[in-house]
This record gives sequence, structure tokens and C-alpha cells, in this order.
Amino acid sequence: MKMKNKLFLFQWLRLLLLLIFSRTSISVKPHKIPRLTPLLENILKDSNTLSSSFTLPKEFETYYYTQTLDHFNYGPKSYSTFKQRYIINSKYWGGSNSSSPIFAYLGAESSIDSDPLGIGFLTDFAPRFKSLLVYMEHRYYGKSIPFGTMEEALKDEDRRGYFNSAQAIADYAELLLHVKQKYSAQNSPIIVIGGSYGGMLASWFRMKYPHIALGALASSAPILYFDDITPQNGYYSIVTKDFKEVSKTCYRTIRKSWSIIDKIASRKNGLSYLSRKFKTCSHLNSSSELKDYLDSIYATAAQYNKPPTYPVTVVCGGIDGAHKGSHVLDRIYAGIVASQGNLSCYNTNVYNQPSETNMGWRWQTCSEMVMPIGRGKNDTMFYSAPFNLDEFIDDCKSNYGVSPRPHWITTYYGGHDIKLILHRFASNIIFSNGLRDPYSSAGVLQDISHSLRAVHTRNGSHCLDILTSKPTDPEWLTMQRKTEVEIIEGWITKYYADLNALKYGKMP
Amino acid sequence: MKMKNKLFLFQWLRLLLLLIFSRTSISVKPHKIPRLTPLLENILKDSNTLSSSFTLPKEFETYYYTQTLDHFNYGPKSYSTFKQRYIINSKYWGGSNSSSPIFAYLGAESSIDSDPLGIGFLTDFAPRFKSLLVYMEHRYYGKSIPFGTMEEALKDEDRRGYFNSAQAIADYAELLLHVKQKYSAQNSPIIVIGGSYGGMLASWFRMKYPHIALGALASSAPILYFDDITPQNGYYSIVTKDFKEVSKTCYRTIRKSWSIIDKIASRKNGLSYLSRKFKTCSHLNSSSELKDYLDSIYATAAQYNKPPTYPVTVVCGGIDGAHKGSHVLDRIYAGIVASQGNLSCYNTNVYNQPSETNMGWRWQTCSEMVMPIGRGKNDTMFYSAPFNLDEFIDDCKSNYGVSPRPHWITTYYGGHDIKLILHRFASNIIFSNGLRDPYSSAGVLQDISHSLRAVHTRNGSHCLDILTSKPTDPEWLTMQRKTEVEIIEGWITKYYADLNALKYGKMP
Repeated sequence: MKMKNKLFLFQWLRLLLLLIFSRTSISVKPHKIPRLTPLLENILKDSNTLSSSFTLPKEFETYYYTQTLDHFNYGPKSYSTFKQRYIINSKYWGGSNSSSPIFAYLGAESSIDSDPLGIGFLTDFAPRFKSLLVYMEHRYYGKSIPFGTMEEALKDEDRRGYFNSAQAIADYAELLLHVKQKYSAQNSPIIVIGGSYGGMLASWFRMKYPHIALGALASSAPILYFDDITPQNGYYSIVTKDFKEVSKTCYRTIRKSWSIIDKIASRKNGLSYLSRKFKTCSHLNSSSELKDYLDSIYATAAQYNKPPTYPVTVVCGGIDGAHKGSHVLDRIYAGIVASQGNLSCYNTNVYNQPSETNMGWRWQTCSEMVMPIGRGKNDTMFYSAPFNLDEFIDDCKSNYGVSPRPHWITTYYGGHDIKLILHRFASNIIFSNGLRDPYSSAGVLQDISHSLRAVHTRNGSHCLDILTSKPTDPEWLTMQRKTEVEIIEGWITKYYADLNALKYGKMP
Repeated sequence: MKMKNKLFLFQWLRLLLLLIFSRTSISVKPHKIPRLTPLLENILKDSNTLSSSFTLPKEFETYYYTQTLDHFNYGPKSYSTFKQRYIINSKYWGGSNSSSPIFAYLGAESSIDSDPLGIGFLTDFAPRFKSLLVYMEHRYYGKSIPFGTMEEALKDEDRRGYFNSAQAIADYAELLLHVKQKYSAQNSPIIVIGGSYGGMLASWFRMKYPHIALGALASSAPILYFDDITPQNGYYSIVTKDFKEVSKTCYRTIRKSWSIIDKIASRKNGLSYLSRKFKTCSHLNSSSELKDYLDSIYATAAQYNKPPTYPVTVVCGGIDGAHKGSHVLDRIYAGIVASQGNLSCYNTNVYNQPSETNMGWRWQTCSEMVMPIGRGKNDTMFYSAPFNLDEFIDDCKSNYGVSPRPHWITTYYGGHDIKLILHRFASNIIFSNGLRDPYSSAGVLQDISHSLRAVHTRNGSHCLDILTSKPTDPEWLTMQRKTEVEIIEGWITKYYADLNALKYGKMP
């Protein structure tokens, strides 16, 4: 029982870690390329001890598929293969001749170690659908790195070239056909499921491989944060709105704080003063270090503003709860303590660790996943940090020697005029969002057609719907999942009817 | 005037050359890999003198786009570029602010030199639609070969790796976005048009890039000739049917001839006898040489069984018209003379010249375009020549050092259960076919939905509908084109209505 609780806790923490990356990875600092940010230490504090003893329950079986390295080239190198990890759970499955569906989770920018436990949507609804569950790891993460470690893979300019989204979804296509064959499941409809970057992959997968996936649940997929489709400040505008809605005084305090930090930092011994004041684990070298740290705390709180604790409320509780007449910076500090816990010191670099996810996603943003997230002077509660494409490109060039292709995502997957384009094309995608998630600013929030559905909740946060359900879940979250499941059930019912009609030559 | 006639003749011959490849390229000989076959010399006899003086009319302007070599890799080599040729005709265009459509011809396995004149569908209907015409050359053909000549490009195992269909349609995507920008044609709907292999590309392009092409006219596209979707003997069964319909005696004569040829060849001096009998330009080294030649003549006649001459009728006219009591082989020879003309000798290798198209398509079949075209012992009027995948793979390996990926086309583009898959997905594709075209055996011949249409003619042959209209065209051909144009007009009308509804916020 204790072990189970620990597992649950670990799963929860790992999941948070996993999901957090997609935001922080692309928070833009002026004159810096967008970067990944690791999780706060206090949230992770138990994970090391847990991970060593961590194993998945027995019904989850791990396999490795010999995957094609380059699907789009027939040169000798592209005939290389690598081992791609996938995990199967057949406990609930109706069996090979039942045409029972397959739920396939598309891995995103991290290992899938704990996804089978964290992404509870699959296990929670498996009994209802008698579905086979498949969890596939994204190439270059976890145990699916073609060339040793992430560091080794990224070091070599040839090796990292194969690390991109088109290759990744082609992996999923090949692997899913393999699974269908292995389980004699030719008539089993496949529903692909993913969150955040994985949600983008899910929607794109249904678009590009409709013959493999019958439908997609794309949770919190910011597929419109490319080119100029979404205003650059979309992300931070929602962070701001989230804080303002919780507390206007909290919002005003944060808004005021940036210039005060800069002012103090510019004074003689100002940085020493700030380092002491904010109990930083190492001496601050610039005011940006502190501001970046606070930026990450607020953005993370907004993105994962989940029940039952609601991190934005927690941060603002600290800020507003400081004793009456407190100075702005004392309030800001109280916000840190409230959200991170009462620590002996605060590591302002905690979001910048060279983790596998940080390193991998950084490459992905510097090659194709160019999301121009920025903000102007007065349009958010933050300091100004516009996205500058030229600087971004220069930074990528100096880091990797190659230039990003900022228009490739919209060239390959589309995005512009999405309603006009898809109104009479495609089907069976759910775009789910929580409107408190800053990434919902670039999500699909309106139905495109009767089978391209937007399902969102006013109070939801990032990827909330696909997480394991809990007794504390509010009614609106339970209802969101119910809606999604009913839509998916509708697709499958239609599919079976079509299959039957075809069999008897009665297809309309 | 004379020049115009010459141009027309040249255009016609070039087109025949162009189209013929797609068949002969994949005719399967036992123990041989499918290969390309060049055109009969007598058909081409004028082309050399013509080609030197050949230029397109002034309204066709040639440009070169700096194209990405590898769209799916971010290694340093893939940042190489090459010059891709495209031709524009803006004579009929409504202009940049008119939202007038763009008709885009997708080049196939040859140079696009003469396509603007040969593929008359575009010019014939341009005035009606006020459309901008774009003709794009396929990478590795014509003036769009990244590495010098075809020979040089294919010699190097790295260089030829980028030569495949996914890269080619990604080229078209990038190039079409460039053209839209260049001509300020953001609201202009694009209709892609292609024939044979190019027709496959057109249908796949609409599937993969619906945000770039509003619709596709896929003429004679055998998209179902992969894996085991279509029976191997589909192609030769239709050749057989074509001959049988024209003349049962002709069909029987051909059917009898193969064993007679083999029998004579096995005798002492038998090959010398056959060489003299068939006036071959060089001495026959095996009976296969002669049989392959005849096979190609019959298949070509069936595939291009066009009005007003109808080559199958011509061949059978020769066979049946030989004087009464003629021996089978005399009749067969009379068929050759009737179809090829009365020549001093017949070059049995004429279908196997190392032309650019032959070489390029051979590589394409040995990498991904694996069409298992074969036939059994008694299911056609031909000798037995089953498709043997293992032998095919071995041959490709010995030629190129790499193994084909026979399942990649269906993995990337689909094809299995096409009605089930696409009935509720995709829109705006016309699959046009002529049922006398052997490739129609692997075409889409039934409507999949109200906007995925099959338009075919009982008497039509390969790619007939997209060729330039002529006064001698039969009524059914004119009607086929009319149907296609009305369908396309319907798509464009709906598109304008959607555009308008969106503008006024009235999109359903």
C-alpha cells in the first residue's frame, strides 16, 4: 500500500516534470534562444530515491522495435536502424478477433518511463472500450536514442539531423502497423492520444496517416503557435490573466516588481542584497537570473494551475498574505516560499539543468519547432521580452551551425486559415484545452466541423484531461473527459458500421 | 504555321514518350527487376531534329527555385539546395487580387520540357477559370537534377538517397507557397494536376498538403498497385481484354505465338531463323529478347489505345490482315510492321535504352515504387511471368546495394481499404481513368464520397483526359473533361463561398 502511494506520488511528479518542459522550453528571454527549464527541486526532491526502485506494474510489458532511422532517404546511412521502446498493456483488450480498439499514446519530448501510470486516460477508459494500450517513445528520448546518450546524439551534426517531428510520426506509423500485425488486429481502429507537443503530434498524425489512426485526442496542442498565426504575447497574456483573476493585488505586485529588481541590481552591492533577500543558493550575477527564475515560477504555476491546490492561488496566497505594509520584494519572496516550500536556499538555475528533455527540446526548437513566444512592453504583467527571429536564428547557428526553418511546420502541417482549410477536409480530431493554460492561446478553441471538435474547460490547465482521474477531480473535469470519450465512442461506432456495411456491400 | 504544326507533332511525340515510361518501366520480366523501356524509334524518329529548334511559346516563362535538398533532416548536408525548374503561364490569370485559381501541374518521371504544350488540360481550361498555370519539374529529372546528370546523381549512393516521392511532393509544397507569395495570390485556390505517376503524386499531395492544394485531378493514377491490393495480373489482364475485344483471332494468334517462338529458338540455328524472320537489327541472343519486345509493343498499344488511330486495332489489323493461311509468326511479324511501320530492321532493344527517364524510374522502383506487376500461367494472352519479390529485392541489392522498401508507399500514403479509410476523411480528388488503360486495374474506379470522385470512360486510355483537346476527340472524351471541369468548378465555388462566409463570420 505504501509502495503504491509512493508510486502514485512518483508518477505524479514525473508527469509534472514531463509536462512542464513543453512550456518552459519555449519561454523566451531577450537575446537568448528559447530554452528548456527543469523542474523545481522541491517538487523533484523525492524522485531520485524513488526512480531507482521504480518499475511499472506487471501488465505493462516493454518491447523494442527495430526502427528505420531515416524514412525519407534511401542512402546507405538511412538504412541504419535503432531500437525504439514501446510498452503494451493487453489486460483489458478484447482480443485479436474482436476488432476492439487500440489506444496509442504518442510519446513527446521525454522518456515514457512513467507515462503508462501518468497518462491515465488510457487505463481509465480501457475497460469500457476493451482496448489494447500502446505507449510509444519518441525517437531521441529515453531508451530510444539512436546514438548512445542524448549528449552523444546531439554532439554530431549528422546524427542529430534525423531528430525531428516528421521522422517521429513516421516511426509511429511503422510501429503501429507492426503492433497491428503482431496482435492480429487488422480491423482494430486506432485512436492516438498525446499532450502538449505530443498533442500536436497526435493531431498531425491523424492528418498525415488517416489510414493508420481512426482518430486523435490532441490535448493542449498549441498547433497555432507557428509563424504569425497566434500573437507572440498569447502565452504570457494568459499567464497574466490567470493571476489577475485570482488576485488583482497579487497581479499588481508582480507587475511592479521587475523595475524594482532592476533598480536595486544596478546599485552598488545591489546583486548581493538581492541574493541575500531571495536566499539564492549561489550569488546572482545579473538581475536577469532572478527575473528568469520568477518568470518560470509564475508561468509554471499558470500552466499547471491544477485542482485541488491551484498553484496560482498558492503563489498569490504568499504574495498577498505577507504581513501588512510589506515591501514589494518581501511579497515576491513570500510568493516563492509559498510555491517552492521553505528551503534553506533557492536554486535560481533549477529550470536550466542540462536534462535530456532540456537538451533535446532545445535542438527541436532550433531546427523546426520555432514558436515565437514573446511579449511587448505593457501587454502583460511581465517585463518586455519580444521574440526576435533574427537573433533566435543567430543563436541557433552559433550553437548548432545550422539555421532553423521557421516556416517548415506550417508548410508540412498547415496551421494558417485552419477553419477554411479543414472545414471540408479531415475528420475525427478532438482538440482539448483548458483555458487557464497559457498554451490554449494557440490551441484550436472552436469546432472546425462536426468531427473536428474543440472541447475546452474554462478552468482547466495544461493536459489535465489526459491525466489519471482522481477522487478530488472537479465536476467540470470529469465532464470534459466524459464528452471526449463519447466523441471517441461515436467515431468507433461509425467505423464498425462502415466495416459492416462494406462487408455486405452496403457502403453508401 | 509550319512551325506550329511541327511543334504540335513534337509535343505529341514527346508526350507519348513521357507517358509511355510509366507503363514500360514496370513491366516485369521473370528474374529481372522491372525496368523502364524507351519509346520505339520510329515514333521518335523526328524528335532529334525537332528538339534542337524547340522552344515554348513566349507566354511560358521558365524559372528556377532554390529548393531544399532534404526536407526531413537537419544535418549539414540536407541544407544543400538545388535548382528546381518551373514554368509559369500568366496569360489567362485574373491577377493577384482576383483570387483566381492556380492550376499546378506536378511533373513526373521525366523532364517537363514539353509538358506545357502536351498537358493541354491546363491551357484549354485556363480562360474559363482565369487561372495561373504552373508546371513544376520533379527532382532528379530534366533541368532539376541536384547533382549534374542523372548518371552522376545515381552513381553516388549518398546522392541518390534524396530521390523519392515524399521529398518530391515536399518540393511542390515549398515551391507552390513561393509562387503564391511571388504572385501575391494568398487567396487563390490551387488545383494540382498530374498523370500516371504524376497522378499518384497529385492525389497524395491533396492528402498530405490539403492546406496548399484545394483539390487534385489524378489522371490514370494506379495508387492501388502496391502490396497485394491489386492482383498482380491486373495490368496484363486488361491488355489481354483490350486485344480480345478488338479481335478474338488476333488475341488467339498472340496467345499461341509465345510457345512457337520458344520452340523455334530451342532448335539449332533457331535464333538465326527468328532474327531473319523478324528483321531484328542485331542477332537475337535469346527468345526472351523477342518476347520482351513483343510484350512491350502490345502493352504500349493497349495503354495508349487512343483515338483516332487506336493502336490495338492497328496491331490486330496487321495480324488479322496477313494473307489467308499465314503462319502464326508471319502474322505476329505483320503486327509489328503495322504498328512500327515498314522499317529496314527492328530494334528489339528500343524499350531498354539508358534514357534519363529509364534510369531514374528504375531507381525509384528499386527504392520505394515497388509495383508487383506480374502474371500467371494461363490468366492472360502472354507467357507466364510472375512477380517474385525476393528476386526483385536481390536484383535491386546487386544494382544499388540497398534493399527496396516494398511496404513504405502504403505506410506513408495508405491504399488498403481505401473506401473505408477515406469515406469520412479527405475531399476534392478526382480519380480519372480510361478502362482500356491496363493501369486502370489499380485505379480508384468508384466514388469514395461525394467529393472523392471516380470519373472513368469505357473506351479511354492512359492519361487521355489531361492531354490537349483535338477536333478528332470523340464525344465521350469531351464529356469526361466536361465532367471533371464541372467538379473542379464546384470545389472552387464552395471555396469562395467559405472564404466569404469566414470574412463575415458566417462560417457554419
